[in-house]
Amino acid sequence: MTMPQPKTPWKSRFAARTQKMTSSVIRELLKLTEKPDIISFAGGLPAPEVFPVPELQAAAQRVLEHHGAAALQYSPTEGYRPLRELLARHMRRYGIKVTPEHVLITTGSQQALELIGKLLINPGDRILTEEPTYLGALQAFTGYQAEYVTVPIDHHGLQIDRLEEALRVGPKFLYVLPNFQNPSGVTLSLERRRRLVELANHYGSPIVEDDPYGQLRYQGEHLPPLVKLDAEFHNCANGEHAFTGNVLYLSTLSKTLAPGLRIGWIVAPEEEIQRLVQMKQGSDLHTSTFTQVLAYETARGGFLDRHVRHIRKVYGERRSAMLEALKRHFPPSVAWTEPQGGLFLWVRLPQGNDAEELLEFALEQKVAFVPGTSFFPCGGGRETLRLNFSYCNPAVIEEGIRRLGLVVKRFLQQGQGPSRKQAA
Amino acid sequence: MTMPQPKTPWKSRFAARTQKMTSSVIRELLKLTEKPDIISFAGGLPAPEVFPVPELQAAAQRVLEHHGAAALQYSPTEGYRPLRELLARHMRRYGIKVTPEHVLITTGSQQALELIGKLLINPGDRILTEEPTYLGALQAFTGYQAEYVTVPIDHHGLQIDRLEEALRVGPKFLYVLPNFQNPSGVTLSLERRRRLVELANHYGSPIVEDDPYGQLRYQGEHLPPLVKLDAEFHNCANGEHAFTGNVLYLSTLSKTLAPGLRIGWIVAPEEEIQRLVQMKQGSDLHTSTFTQVLAYETARGGFLDRHVRHIRKVYGERRSAMLEALKRHFPPSVAWTEPQGGLFLWVRLPQGNDAEELLEFALEQKVAFVPGTSFFPCGGGRETLRLNFSYCNPAVIEEGIRRLGLVVKRFLQQGQGPSRKQAA
Repeated sequence: MTMPQPKTPWKSRFAARTQKMTSSVIRELLKLTEKPDIISFAGGLPAPEVFPVPELQAAAQRVLEHHGAAALQYSPTEGYRPLRELLARHMRRYGIKVTPEHVLITTGSQQALELIGKLLINPGDRILTEEPTYLGALQAFTGYQAEYVTVPIDHHGLQIDRLEEALRVGPKFLYVLPNFQNPSGVTLSLERRRRLVELANHYGSPIVEDDPYGQLRYQGEHLPPLVKLDAEFHNCANGEHAFTGNVLYLSTLSKTLAPGLRIGWIVAPEEEIQRLVQMKQGSDLHTSTFTQVLAYETARGGFLDRHVRHIRKVYGERRSAMLEALKRHFPPSVAWTEPQGGLFLWVRLPQGNDAEELLEFALEQKVAFVPGTSFFPCGGGRETLRLNFSYCNPAVIEEGIRRLGLVVKRFLQQGQGPSRKQAA
Repeated sequence: MTMPQPKTPWKSRFAARTQKMTSSVIRELLKLTEKPDIISFAGGLPAPEVFPVPELQAAAQRVLEHHGAAALQYSPTEGYRPLRELLARHMRRYGIKVTPEHVLITTGSQQALELIGKLLINPGDRILTEEPTYLGALQAFTGYQAEYVTVPIDHHGLQIDRLEEALRVGPKFLYVLPNFQNPSGVTLSLERRRRLVELANHYGSPIVEDDPYGQLRYQGEHLPPLVKLDAEFHNCANGEHAFTGNVLYLSTLSKTLAPGLRIGWIVAPEEEIQRLVQMKQGSDLHTSTFTQVLAYETARGGFLDRHVRHIRKVYGERRSAMLEALKRHFPPSVAWTEPQGGLFLWVRLPQGNDAEELLEFALEQKVAFVPGTSFFPCGGGRETLRLNFSYCNPAVIEEGIRRLGLVVKRFLQQGQGPSRKQAA
């Protein structure tokens, strides 16, 4: 015999807010990718075929054989020193003087966003973002009761002529993904980058530059990161530029090595690193020593660079496969971006259509994507959707876009979307 | 030519609070343990000699050979399902019906504390803790601007006759370490456990039970965890008890497998697990897939139980070595606890002495410990200090306690402590 369960005594400090922080649509949809008969363009998953399994295996052996005790022990919150050195050297390629003291290792890039939120955001603070923007950042910032002011994007990224108006609101910081943005795939042009840095300095708004995909460019020339342009703006010197404090730069090994290791990093002035270290101590003491040492042992000696070249080749083919399939199978009234890198492209249905309704029909045909609304912090985006092109191989991409094209055509021709909406 | 650096544009949301959250004394002292000539009783480090390196090595090979793609990919926030099942089975040994749905894997126990703070604590909420209590919990809770109400401990744990007075303050929850508490090493008696559960229910205060050391008992009989006693309190049945919601139970693999894997867990009602999962999504998406799969592959099939028996033997000897050395080398005016398990014991100098001053002299003699004050959320504890007995082998313990005994004797005989204090 069991007594009735008592009502939960745990009073969340924000019953309302937990509702507002709706369970991530993307994470929920990821569960669909586990069904083997669904072709999913929904997740942001790297292709498992590019994981460097033999290299990781060899590195794991070396680590446990030679550094077992150290790699399994507690370690400093700042991160594993040789990995911080490797990442600082990596940053110096961009021509800025980054030392290991400027680098904090985080438990994936998501923790970098979380720590920034925890350190900086007071309830009601406004964060300036692109519209649409990365959902994981919204989750992290909304957890600290951020509000948002947004600037729409076009094919060259954030619409710079609309930035000044948003800056006048006095945002706490700008959150920007300049390269192959998630979700839209667009890249901020060099001219706009310079103007953005200039305006942010003028209005005294610091910048959080999120760059998970910067190395995954399949077309065109690499553009300097904002952290570099900010250094140029503040320094008159030629050559290597002193590191300035107006930009925090975030990146990750999740897209170039493996997401299951959970290794990201923040580049920031030493003073901010020290405050972020305090936040991180309370959050998880430190990132797994073992995965840090393993990542370092795998990446070092030039392997990561070679491996990134391989990933570029594989993903570049998949991007082309998706763009060609879209041309073949999608009706002319639908528009999409043509990303020069990254993992995603962005589709816009004719005005008045609802991608969430489309998703229901798509799932019936065993193909999945992410409706765009979740990427709009201030609402909107009903007619947009995100497609991932890194996870499926070209043949599967062709088949998935064929299926999706049929669904889209039927949806638009039969007016399923607007008519259903109007009926409601 | 370099322009002067601009003043930092990053305005922390709590300049004052970051000062209040003083950089962890323990983490700073851990840096001392890196000096090879210091004998450190300061950290809370497991002994690296007990890390099961060959077993982890074999497991890493199996994982990468057979589950490489899955173990390196993104994975569900809740945690790796087989590991959650293993931990649920482990909990059922205590006689409570825990299913995998009741288990959330966290990035070390520290993240469990952080997520609980994030979910529950409003600025100014009071948390009831033992005095002294675990510093890492204070760091996590203080990050959400908690205040504290404390109940002192004696040799049988929290002084239960002083609990009711503290409960009348209306704490948000009780934070308790019933087994071999960090920092004091004391264990809450069975009678007090029952009374604590009864009173907490009576006053409607839920309990966070932190149990990192429960399996590391070297003497005496295992006592039921509060989560079990709460289930008994709410259920009339004999045998296995339905899981009730009044206690969140936390534990970790850091002390039984390896801390560098960063694997902890929370046992909670499903409703609370779902809310904690939302918090964790925003914090780090999920704990390293690779270290979860690796921990599972190492622990399963009974290995973890065998390994824990080995650890008990090694640490039990070290505990005895420290207790015997203390008897031999410490003056009779100094008192200490005799823990039945865990990693720490607790020393009390005669009233009026300051352990922080003592530490300066101890470091001159190349021996380290943690002064007690950081473990007192409401101040006090100047005459106390914490000694770790898991990290050093018995011979080193003997030498370290001999050195420390000399320092203590000189400190007390020459009145260095009190006299210096009075002079100041």
